[in-house]
Amino acid sequence: MTSRGRVRTTSNSLDPNEDPVSGLERVFSNSNLEQIARQRRRQEEAMLFSRQFTESDRTDSHEALSARYESLNYEVSENRLYRDAEKKPSHQLTLWRISRNRWFVCFLIGVFTGLVAAFIDIMVHYSKDIKFSWILKYLISKCSEEQRGTTAGCMWTVMIAWIGYNCFLVTIAAILVIYVAPIAGGSGIPQIKCYLNGIAIPEVVRLKTLVSKAIGVACSVGGGLCAGKEGPMIHSGAAVGAGISQGKSYSLGIDFGLFREFRNDRERRDFVSAGAAAGVAAAFGAPIGGVLFSLEEGASFWNQNLTWRMFFSAMISSFTVNWILSWFNGRSGWLSWTGLANFGIFENKDYNIWEIPLFLLIGIIGGCLGALFNYLNTRLTEFRKKYVSSKFGRLFECLLVAAVSGFLAFLTIFAIDDCQPIGANPTATSTQINQMWCKKGEYSAVASLFFQNPEESVKSLFHSPINSFGVTTLIIFGIEYFLLTLWTFGISVPSGVFIPAILTGAAWGRLFGILVERLFPSVTGIDPGKYALAGAAAQLGGVVRMTISLTAIIMEATKDITFGLPIMLVLMVTKWVGDIFNEGLYDAHIDLAEVPILGWNPPKMSRNILADRVMRKDVVALERRERVSRIIEILRSTLHHGFPVVDRIEESPYESLPDYGRLKGYILRSQLFKLLENRIFEEEGSSHGGLPADFYECQDDDDQMKSLADLGLTPYDESCWLDIEPYMHPHPHRVPINTSLPFIFRLFRGLGLRYLFVVNDDNHLRGVITRKDVARFRERRRNHEYHVEELYISES
Amino acid sequence: MTSRGRVRTTSNSLDPNEDPVSGLERVFSNSNLEQIARQRRRQEEAMLFSRQFTESDRTDSHEALSARYESLNYEVSENRLYRDAEKKPSHQLTLWRISRNRWFVCFLIGVFTGLVAAFIDIMVHYSKDIKFSWILKYLISKCSEEQRGTTAGCMWTVMIAWIGYNCFLVTIAAILVIYVAPIAGGSGIPQIKCYLNGIAIPEVVRLKTLVSKAIGVACSVGGGLCAGKEGPMIHSGAAVGAGISQGKSYSLGIDFGLFREFRNDRERRDFVSAGAAAGVAAAFGAPIGGVLFSLEEGASFWNQNLTWRMFFSAMISSFTVNWILSWFNGRSGWLSWTGLANFGIFENKDYNIWEIPLFLLIGIIGGCLGALFNYLNTRLTEFRKKYVSSKFGRLFECLLVAAVSGFLAFLTIFAIDDCQPIGANPTATSTQINQMWCKKGEYSAVASLFFQNPEESVKSLFHSPINSFGVTTLIIFGIEYFLLTLWTFGISVPSGVFIPAILTGAAWGRLFGILVERLFPSVTGIDPGKYALAGAAAQLGGVVRMTISLTAIIMEATKDITFGLPIMLVLMVTKWVGDIFNEGLYDAHIDLAEVPILGWNPPKMSRNILADRVMRKDVVALERRERVSRIIEILRSTLHHGFPVVDRIEESPYESLPDYGRLKGYILRSQLFKLLENRIFEEEGSSHGGLPADFYECQDDDDQMKSLADLGLTPYDESCWLDIEPYMHPHPHRVPINTSLPFIFRLFRGLGLRYLFVVNDDNHLRGVITRKDVARFRERRRNHEYHVEELYISES
Repeated sequence: MTSRGRVRTTSNSLDPNEDPVSGLERVFSNSNLEQIARQRRRQEEAMLFSRQFTESDRTDSHEALSARYESLNYEVSENRLYRDAEKKPSHQLTLWRISRNRWFVCFLIGVFTGLVAAFIDIMVHYSKDIKFSWILKYLISKCSEEQRGTTAGCMWTVMIAWIGYNCFLVTIAAILVIYVAPIAGGSGIPQIKCYLNGIAIPEVVRLKTLVSKAIGVACSVGGGLCAGKEGPMIHSGAAVGAGISQGKSYSLGIDFGLFREFRNDRERRDFVSAGAAAGVAAAFGAPIGGVLFSLEEGASFWNQNLTWRMFFSAMISSFTVNWILSWFNGRSGWLSWTGLANFGIFENKDYNIWEIPLFLLIGIIGGCLGALFNYLNTRLTEFRKKYVSSKFGRLFECLLVAAVSGFLAFLTIFAIDDCQPIGANPTATSTQINQMWCKKGEYSAVASLFFQNPEESVKSLFHSPINSFGVTTLIIFGIEYFLLTLWTFGISVPSGVFIPAILTGAAWGRLFGILVERLFPSVTGIDPGKYALAGAAAQLGGVVRMTISLTAIIMEATKDITFGLPIMLVLMVTKWVGDIFNEGLYDAHIDLAEVPILGWNPPKMSRNILADRVMRKDVVALERRERVSRIIEILRSTLHHGFPVVDRIEESPYESLPDYGRLKGYILRSQLFKLLENRIFEEEGSSHGGLPADFYECQDDDDQMKSLADLGLTPYDESCWLDIEPYMHPHPHRVPINTSLPFIFRLFRGLGLRYLFVVNDDNHLRGVITRKDVARFRERRRNHEYHVEELYISES
Repeated sequence: MTSRGRVRTTSNSLDPNEDPVSGLERVFSNSNLEQIARQRRRQEEAMLFSRQFTESDRTDSHEALSARYESLNYEVSENRLYRDAEKKPSHQLTLWRISRNRWFVCFLIGVFTGLVAAFIDIMVHYSKDIKFSWILKYLISKCSEEQRGTTAGCMWTVMIAWIGYNCFLVTIAAILVIYVAPIAGGSGIPQIKCYLNGIAIPEVVRLKTLVSKAIGVACSVGGGLCAGKEGPMIHSGAAVGAGISQGKSYSLGIDFGLFREFRNDRERRDFVSAGAAAGVAAAFGAPIGGVLFSLEEGASFWNQNLTWRMFFSAMISSFTVNWILSWFNGRSGWLSWTGLANFGIFENKDYNIWEIPLFLLIGIIGGCLGALFNYLNTRLTEFRKKYVSSKFGRLFECLLVAAVSGFLAFLTIFAIDDCQPIGANPTATSTQINQMWCKKGEYSAVASLFFQNPEESVKSLFHSPINSFGVTTLIIFGIEYFLLTLWTFGISVPSGVFIPAILTGAAWGRLFGILVERLFPSVTGIDPGKYALAGAAAQLGGVVRMTISLTAIIMEATKDITFGLPIMLVLMVTKWVGDIFNEGLYDAHIDLAEVPILGWNPPKMSRNILADRVMRKDVVALERRERVSRIIEILRSTLHHGFPVVDRIEESPYESLPDYGRLKGYILRSQLFKLLENRIFEEEGSSHGGLPADFYECQDDDDQMKSLADLGLTPYDESCWLDIEPYMHPHPHRVPINTSLPFIFRLFRGLGLRYLFVVNDDNHLRGVITRKDVARFRERRRNHEYHVEELYISES
């Protein structure tokens, strides 16, 4: 090994004018490192901006990527300990245990996700129950007795009680999100998508997030917001996946000591994807859809074994929900129960070739409406980010939304007179409130849409006979629901967009069906429910822009395969049309959060962007044997999560940064931490002491909880040496300096890299590429031409 | 650039004792190259064997990988032409055209796959029609008139006519396979699986293969063999995908000049996966199942755009089949038609929790039976490979199978007396032949199983009332079908295993249901059809060991979601149980064919196998500027499909192979060929002339059709120089020499590599790793311990 001494000599001999004392020591002293980093950054930013105005093949961007998101560490650190572990006789047993535990954990994930989903559903059920049977029944019956004939006056009391109850529940949800776990707000799907993409979103899969999300979504749905419980269930599933696989909880500070072998980002990410699949399976009774969702939204590669375990979790979760709900609904053990989002079964399953253009048209409408929704919601979110940032302001907005939602419902019922004879629509539940506004023997179709479980309303729109809803009812309901959903998605409560979008789409789809029926009165067999289904798919597809998984989910939720083909067609057209205008809602929110997510394909027109432009040059490298004091300095002064190891570090005569030698490996910050913590030091001149027994210690990634000061290193410790070689990953991914961006992109995407090192022709380290550096380059289409846009990396 | 002359001097100065004339010239002369290659190979083999007996962590293997399979070239050669193309203003147009054409081609693939599937189905329909209405009706009515009372004697005539007709059809199928396209034999799924895995199986997607397969499978199914048409349809779809995307046909020698941009392995493989998905969609009416099939069996990574196009093809194909068949069956335009394998709709969809253990038991039985099937079929295939190798012998075997299948059916009908009153089973078609053996007003249940379309028999077993089939009937039918399928799968006709396995499984599953019903007579609601479905899934799962895609296919084919959960459970248990004994049927056949397929995960216990043990050292490299004569020599004397380019080649003083300099790039054989063909030469001393205009020329991979002699190079040409640099891929994947096998494996699997170069610490080329070198290492479990087995690479 090249010793430090020799290097310094060489370095000095290269540059004899340099003060020998201020050589490497100067470069690596604490304050200087920060200074250099800042200086580099400024240089780079300047370069970036100058590039944007000088080079023609790129558009300038006002968008940014946030520097605060780190990548997950998906790669195995194949260090010597890891290799030696295989030589031990006990390794066969470890392999067997890991393999068994993976299945066991997936089983638990399925069971617990199912439990959480059932909990949410039962909570929603009871909160609705209280509202309907207790407040309303009592008040309405009182109204009826006292003021028969002048219901309008009494109705105000009912309405205020109704809105008050809603606001109470929404307050709980909002407080949980605003004060306990901010990440639990919204649908959670964008966050999970980022996590599965390989980005460490802070706190996204913690226990407190799970608890806030589960209770919060039950409250916000129970509180009558235009919010679905499906997205939050997926997020909950993901959190369950992470929590169980780690066998400990940060939020509670409890470590059960279980499943130590899964305590790294790679394994955790796999279990999170299984949890997300289980969440979808529980929410929609759609295990295949769940697996496809995890793949479409998250996975960058298809691994049969992992997919199969995901499938297992999804199945168990769907099974658990069915079991609990069959028991809850008094048909214990009857497993053909159908998940939480049960959209009922279609009686009329035929469709004909002349209906295909109609489905295409629905797809186009859905694409346009979805794009409009996404545009408006994005603008609204930007506005909210700027002007509604205080905690109180956000809480107030939630209450306002809850109040307006309730008020609008009552107002609509008063305004529209759509009374139908009871029994005309067998799918509508005729509660007392629905009959209030109408004559005896009739009920209000509007009320049956507004004062039902949203899932029941979807069923109504899909399956009720052709004349169950008036045209005005559908128009007003559709518009109101569209606007309320728009406002609701993004406020500080857990809220999904699936069911509201389906409901909006079902309303205008049914309207479409009625119009078709009126235009072609001679054609029999037109079922507006069929068009309601197509409309629901179109609206939802237009908003979220999923295709395959959404088809599977809708097919599984309707328990029907026959409409598979038209649904696919609708979703495909929807995505095509929507993509002309903007991107999907989840992607838009990810962009707003400035998360460095990697797309599916490298940006077009990026072949001539080479590694030397992509990489960061301000690398801090280690030698294979380093003094402890220098390591502490580096850990203190940089925030890098991994450090390349080179065979020698020389001062460069031309540049202010040192000239690194050959790339020998890399080591994670957490590993260095572990080494310092365990004091794997050597005294000056002595040889190596011994390796710690458990190599999993060096695979564990959680360095979040400790600080350097906690280690209590003495000056003597700091004077020791640390032999990094046995602990470093000895053959990190490397590319030459002339590598193109698409090539780098495929490496990152295909292998889930966190670091890629750039070497010159002699294998000398020249730079490092992280996910952010790759994600910075975005493909944009402007005036029908593709451009590569280079985003600015913000420090916030 | 380092010139040849200087290198030679350096080389000589390194080894002054060497005869200067016999330097590099000697190393690279034609005969010497072959000699060296042979010598290397012998050395390697010796090394291999010695390793097998000396190293303890590996088991010795009698299995081999064939050296004749090449990898597909999935990587883009990002040479200077490719990069320059992007700078041209026309490139935006090209991008747009490629993107549009991809969709257009996928549309065509869907349409044509649908057409082929419909063609096969209609062919089978007519061939059955001829058999039933023409031969049998005529003969049986004649029998009835002449010999009423003594039917047995007359039956011989019927049987001989029946068997004769079957043999005639099977002969056509066998001749097509044996004499026209041998690769068209069998199901085709193993071959497609290998192709999608990245292996160039010769002729697998040619037009003549498609024609032989389509006509052949119609004949073999029409000829009464225990064969399904689903596997061959998937193969046909894949062939359609390849054929259409290339816009030309090798078999016909026609080049339509279309879709030139897709003429490389990478694009072709994508379209083949779309074609395979379309094939599944057409065969089972299962578009989602098709996409999952392509992913589960083939894709190594999930690309959303590609998956979406696959989905589109699958949808269009399913649509086309529905349309044609709705027209063929006189209900034109009625699109709810249900694909080719229509298993009918279940009336009784309930199941209860106490049935779960029964489903698990069915899964275990299916796993065992499937494993038994695979074991016996593998032994039989080995036997056949050894002893039935002549063309005539194979033809004879096909005829024998056809005759025995027909004979056994008749024999069984005579032997078993299972007459049921007509109307007892509404799903059984009561043709005249079924009534022959029974009294008036009755029909033979056995005959209704044997003399129906297999798909109809499946429907019968799934949906007929509980007493439609006697226990003996089911036992005898199940055993006979199991054995006949065993014999049939592997003979030289196109034949799938899906439907026969489903039929076998449905028989024993129904039997299982009847037993359950007899054991628990008090429990109501036991439907043997439900257990028949579970049995069918179990038997099929036990044979092919697919999980997710098979669940989706069965769900889509039965148009039913309710049984999704039990089917998943059954398939999961089946795979677990089956995997204890052996691997799936397709994988077993792939192993028998010695194809270097890569599994999903790197072998366990392989961390300590490093690149220097995996790589081949007998690399033939080029310099960046080479004399044409040397290139011709190399092309003539090696069969390598790609050559690394290094900055200098020196003779090594220690080894018989030269000492290569830094890795600068690599170039494909086909690209060198193109350069020679277009005479992109430079005279001694002169600079470069110019680049050919169309860079797609240098991406085109088909060099199969030309030989070096066809190029007609003159001695003057040979004295020229070729500047390789603009055409080579300038940054190939490289790993250091201490890289572990799992790391290498993930690179190959995740990126679809063909070549991986091994460099030393100074970036000097030291070896090359191809797919075969990686696939050589196989994980095996022996005595509950994992071992890595190193296969022998055979030259055949």
